[in-house]
Amino acid sequence: MPRRLKKACSIVTLTTDFGWNDAYVAEMKAVLLGQAPDARIVDVTHGIAPQDVAAGSVTLERLVRAFDEGTVHVVVIDPGVGSNRRLLLARIGGQTIICPDNGLITWAWRRHPKGAAAHELTWRPATAISATFHGRDVMAPAAARIAAGERWQKLCRPLSGEPPRWLDMAPATSLGEGRVIHVDHFGNATTNVPGELLDRSPVQTVRAGRHRVPLRRTYAGVPIGGPLALVGSSGLLEIAVRNGSACKRLGLRVGDVVKMYGR
Amino acid sequence: MPRRLKKACSIVTLTTDFGWNDAYVAEMKAVLLGQAPDARIVDVTHGIAPQDVAAGSVTLERLVRAFDEGTVHVVVIDPGVGSNRRLLLARIGGQTIICPDNGLITWAWRRHPKGAAAHELTWRPATAISATFHGRDVMAPAAARIAAGERWQKLCRPLSGEPPRWLDMAPATSLGEGRVIHVDHFGNATTNVPGELLDRSPVQTVRAGRHRVPLRRTYAGVPIGGPLALVGSSGLLEIAVRNGSACKRLGLRVGDVVKMYGR
Amino acid sequence: MPRRLKKACSIVTLTTDFGWNDAYVAEMKAVLLGQAPDARIVDVTHGIAPQDVAAGSVTLERLVRAFDEGTVHVVVIDPGVGSNRRLLLARIGGQTIICPDNGLITWAWRRHPKGAAAHELTWRPATAISATFHGRDVMAPAAARIAAGERWQKLCRPLSGEPPRWLDMAPATSLGEGRVIHVDHFGNATTNVPGELLDRSPVQTVRAGRHRVPLRRTYAGVPIGGPLALVGSSGLLEIAVRNGSACKRLGLRVGDVVKMYGR
Repeated sequence: MPRRLKKACSIVTLTTDFGWNDAYVAEMKAVLLGQAPDARIVDVTHGIAPQDVAAGSVTLERLVRAFDEGTVHVVVIDPGVGSNRRLLLARIGGQTIICPDNGLITWAWRRHPKGAAAHELTWRPATAISATFHGRDVMAPAAARIAAGERWQKLCRPLSGEPPRWLDMAPATSLGEGRVIHVDHFGNATTNVPGELLDRSPVQTVRAGRHRVPLRRTYAGVPIGGPLALVGSSGLLEIAVRNGSACKRLGLRVGDVVKMYGR
Repeated sequence: MPRRLKKACSIVTLTTDFGWNDAYVAEMKAVLLGQAPDARIVDVTHGIAPQDVAAGSVTLERLVRAFDEGTVHVVVIDPGVGSNRRLLLARIGGQTIICPDNGLITWAWRRHPKGAAAHELTWRPATAISATFHGRDVMAPAAARIAAGERWQKLCRPLSGEPPRWLDMAPATSLGEGRVIHVDHFGNATTNVPGELLDRSPVQTVRAGRHRVPLRRTYAGVPIGGPLALVGSSGLLEIAVRNGSACKRLGLRVGDVVKMYGR
Repeated sequence: MPRRLKKACSIVTLTTDFGWNDAYVAEMKAVLLGQAPDARIVDVTHGIAPQDVAAGSVTLERLVRAFDEGTVHVVVIDPGVGSNRRLLLARIGGQTIICPDNGLITWAWRRHPKGAAAHELTWRPATAISATFHGRDVMAPAAARIAAGERWQKLCRPLSGEPPRWLDMAPATSLGEGRVIHVDHFGNATTNVPGELLDRSPVQTVRAGRHRVPLRRTYAGVPIGGPLALVGSSGLLEIAVRNGSACKRLGLRVGDVVKMYGR
């Protein structure tokens, strides 16, 4: 008698700008656990600054890089809720991303373009949908269906009309200059310069803001408190201060230009 | 040979004012997972302001609305720990609530009165109980017993003496005036005015603090940055600013009066 | 036909200084869930102040006290990442601790010395290791192996050379004086004075900073707003203010001296 193989529990990640103090995230989990009781839910962060789509986009790329095929990522940074903005179901690296069509997929797409595809999430629940909380009323139940084994193809259709919305954000392709795309909790400034560009390059120093810092392989390559550039854990050039904050010490912000020098 | 059917894992939600930086919540989870290893634990928030029972009460109502029968909600906002305050085991909508008797159940009870019942949580563990942390030593193990399949009736007895303590908080019953009962992370101000009251009503504008704002169905009903009133995702009238903060822009706080007008 | 007994899921706790707003913790969970899909992950906190090893050490002790044998604790407060600092695999109370060798194990070891043992975590993954994120690239996969059933002995070898690094932190052994070792979210100041010392002692008041406060059994032993000392939920003497903050009210900080008096 055939037995259904127990498949590994599906992983659903949640990334939002809802903050940590309200019940909104729990309401999404009520939906997820109600409809996909075996799903493993990972709270990535709910501390994205309100409506900071660029920060969500950088975060999503790290998730796609870290998780395995089959993972479902729900990203709810959705200033357009209640307007006629579309919802997307994107596929990158065998993973499914559910989010508003407002640029959130940009950075993951640009860094992992092979086989990436975007569709319109057209599935809607039979029950009433609020005017203000599609994370709970549409995106979470759609993710739950996929986590519970439904084929993602059933929830979407090809994008018609406009292409997806893109942020003005792309990996640097030459050793000319780059830009800061994210500042993390430690004050490290991540740039859009892929580490591959620096392999076997003559680059020895990097200018960030008004400071010029040495390129090193690890924090230990400079004294404690010293600024440096290095290829960080996301494979991108980062500006850091050993045991300190590059953001505070060097005054770096998202959008700042970085330049690379051979000496 | 009969086999016990695997029942869906019980869900236990945790709402506290413990903050996010200490080990207290993990200590509660050690108890829960030790005694109910299959329980699904949902951290609702640990960011309720210290001893803000009213905020906990509004949060709990959203949970009761969102989760299914059988869910256990543990709410530990407990300024009276170590005094002779009682603990409650309340039942609302087939869900079980374990919390101190200090008004936390008020808003969920007022919004979902049908079949609501409050009992005294009289069960105590055989082991020593600290004088300061009944969340870990009494409420978590009581929740674990229910999550592990014990009947809730075994943990409590009828309330004797005083009725439960209530907060001064009730749904508005007419279109006269209401009050702000919660301000969320986005700065949206939730009121005590049920959306049902507004169905087919002549209300067209709402005054909140010193501002008069139009009643709309979605954020998109006003320009970006514009203030509005709408029925939010909890089914209550909310005051909001599209892609902004009503709290900052209109200076709204919990307790502020709102008035509704037919023009 | 023999069937493998389902063992209880392993618990893996995570304590870091990564903050709550970045993807780093989720990247560790991707590793854990990928390699140990049944692991139960408990986020203790990611809000340890950057590089505050002492706070991590106090937190870890509470975890060891709270959780059962077999639990794996991963503590990533790692200012030395990229240098030649060692990683530890410590065993305390039948639990496994994976962390950098920078003093993190001090407080748990001092409070639970019986059978405590420290080894060097020498296991490394076959895949590439970043220079900046050993929490994800070494510690999480090591924890996953243990959670998935591998014997911890296979991942480590005896410490050679230096003993583990210790913080300057030990339980008080007499009723002379103690020190504040932690201030929590409520502003309660935990000291290094074990409650056992106070059993049957003549101590009646405690001086903390410039204030002298009565020793009581519960918060309810003083009026609301009143300062007191009591044995807290970790079994240590704490300085508190009933329904208030001892940190703010009495100006207490980590390192402050406390003295005990018989009257």
